[in-house]
Amino acid sequence: MPNAASQNIKLAVIPGDGIGPEVVAEALKVLDAVTADSGVTFDKTEYRLGAGRFLEDGEVLPAAEFDEIKQADAILLGAVGGKPNDPRLAAANIERGLLLKLRFELDHYVNLRPTVVYPTVESPLKNPGEVDFVVVREGTEGPYVGNGGSIRIGTPHEVANEVSVNTAYGVERVVRFAFAQASARRKKLTLVHKTNVLVFAGKLWRRIVDEVSAEFPDVEVDYLHVDAATIFLVTDPARFDVIVTDNLFGDILTDLAGAISGGIGLAASGNINPDGTFPSMFEPVHGSAPDIAGQQLADPTAAILSVALLLSHVGLADASAKVTAAVQHDLASRSGGGTRSTAEIGDSIVSLLK
Amino acid sequence: MPNAASQNIKLAVIPGDGIGPEVVAEALKVLDAVTADSGVTFDKTEYRLGAGRFLEDGEVLPAAEFDEIKQADAILLGAVGGKPNDPRLAAANIERGLLLKLRFELDHYVNLRPTVVYPTVESPLKNPGEVDFVVVREGTEGPYVGNGGSIRIGTPHEVANEVSVNTAYGVERVVRFAFAQASARRKKLTLVHKTNVLVFAGKLWRRIVDEVSAEFPDVEVDYLHVDAATIFLVTDPARFDVIVTDNLFGDILTDLAGAISGGIGLAASGNINPDGTFPSMFEPVHGSAPDIAGQQLADPTAAILSVALLLSHVGLADASAKVTAAVQHDLASRSGGGTRSTAEIGDSIVSLLK
Ligand SMILES: CC(C)[C@H](C(=O)O)[C@@H](O)C(=O)O
Ligand SMILES: CC(C)[C@H](C(=O)O)[C@@H](O)C(=O)O
Repeated sequence: MPNAASQNIKLAVIPGDGIGPEVVAEALKVLDAVTADSGVTFDKTEYRLGAGRFLEDGEVLPAAEFDEIKQADAILLGAVGGKPNDPRLAAANIERGLLLKLRFELDHYVNLRPTVVYPTVESPLKNPGEVDFVVVREGTEGPYVGNGGSIRIGTPHEVANEVSVNTAYGVERVVRFAFAQASARRKKLTLVHKTNVLVFAGKLWRRIVDEVSAEFPDVEVDYLHVDAATIFLVTDPARFDVIVTDNLFGDILTDLAGAISGGIGLAASGNINPDGTFPSMFEPVHGSAPDIAGQQLADPTAAILSVALLLSHVGLADASAKVTAAVQHDLASRSGGGTRSTAEIGDSIVSLLK
Repeated sequence: MPNAASQNIKLAVIPGDGIGPEVVAEALKVLDAVTADSGVTFDKTEYRLGAGRFLEDGEVLPAAEFDEIKQADAILLGAVGGKPNDPRLAAANIERGLLLKLRFELDHYVNLRPTVVYPTVESPLKNPGEVDFVVVREGTEGPYVGNGGSIRIGTPHEVANEVSVNTAYGVERVVRFAFAQASARRKKLTLVHKTNVLVFAGKLWRRIVDEVSAEFPDVEVDYLHVDAATIFLVTDPARFDVIVTDNLFGDILTDLAGAISGGIGLAASGNINPDGTFPSMFEPVHGSAPDIAGQQLADPTAAILSVALLLSHVGLADASAKVTAAVQHDLASRSGGGTRSTAEIGDSIVSLLK
């Protein structure tokens, strides 16, 4: 992981499919503007990867491009994936072959997803309260490992298994990261799992949380079953500070969190390799939304907030704070609705950077 | 499965722990009242099972009692489970050893969970719209099968696996049930899964839904990833008619559905064996809530609506409709808040049966 001392930061950019290129264009505008006079330059290389690329030449993640991406200091990704039922994509699994491959092979064991309900943003909840929490989602294990299989495929006797793999090594490193986050925040950590049903994985998560908890006596620890956690996310989301959870539960909870905070168009994320062995990757939580692509209808805010996470990760805390503040100002001006184009929102945030 | 022709219906009653006995008492009051002059009698046998029983004599589900329960025509269950962190319960897993054992061994492959947002009930959502859907949750497969294990337990090298088992046989029967429901309702079925990540199980579910769909040309079929489904449950729950999904996703979605419909205190469920080989079991979705037990604070409505599902299942459609109508009248009178005891709510619903 580079820091502000690096004058030149190698950034791999994967705009992707659908609205990906549009929101990434605005995110890069903001990145350039906020670092313009900082002495730090971003050396950007764009990689055309995703469903579009696959349809062109059948490639999902060619080895040579992947090798280059591994050499970057950080990655900015828009969104990948084509139309859900496109028969030409049936053979490829862009999600597993590209997005999850990047997360797994670049050892992004922390998937960091902050949720803030901004007062001027319309939430579907009547009384969200003061919501400011972060989900620390495990990124390299659990039901996402791709360990499964089927027999008697296509027959009435088919059996399809999916194996969730959980290791003390993998759980401990993400739990420790989550405790450190909680310790630097409001000092409350909630483990979310389903220990009453998934007893093997559940016991492992609870044991590790108990053990690491001894190193962070200032952090209060709570536990919720995943089903109960969804209830609290709509009835009392302000109760959360840091949630630590597995890959699948984290996927579900963060989409719900995005929805209650006024839309997935605001939800940013970092796929982080805290060791710095591999580049971390920053991306909006939303998907490629092919139905609205190319029409300047997408909100680039999630991509821009992902740039804020990226800046902070590479040691540019001031620039990161500036981006977040500009976004907050822009959000404050949104009340009353009105539709701006993707570029207009980006331009507005750039103009508010000063 | 008996029907109205049976003059005597054998009902196994498992009040359970925490608020279970309180809400079951009201549910039975309503059952008795609504069937008083019908010529149908319910021959009730109570089974003391749950955390309380385990703490007394170490038994979770003794074989003799289980054999008797299997002979019943239907089961009414309150809620089971003790205080989450009670060390005396660490050795038992009441959920797996009792509740899930009943669901699995009695082949409750349909877990039916309706959600209705009643206009007078306070929802945490600003604009829920007209919400009336039913989740058909698979009940005997998926990540709930208890197929998993750990090695090097308690060490830094522990590996804990959980296997989700899905069969064409198991998926097809629940999917067919869901299509039949949709066909008798607003003719819309939404499959919820995570086919882009859990590709083996996902392909099986999609194939079966496609195949069964051919038998129900009047039912429109939609698909959502589970993460996206949670978004729609808070932004546009009125879009749903019938949701069919696996055991774990169904668990998560129905707690969330309970929350948006104004609280898990209203959510009823049926664990159904449509073949009638085994008795079906009716229970509120909520848990035992030991913190408020014995104080007459619990809302018995979910248990009473579970009785409505039970009545309809045993062929007493009129009595079922009467209970639902009485609950609706009671809910209509609730606006403005005010706290009534568990028994007062039960009495009110009984008085509205006429
Ligand atoms: C696209 C999909 C594989 C991905 C996930 O499930 O992690 C997405 O939903 C997300 O949350 O980033
Ligand atoms: C208690 C628990 C095992 C159960 C489940 O996960 O099915 C409960 O949450 C439910 O939804 O009925």
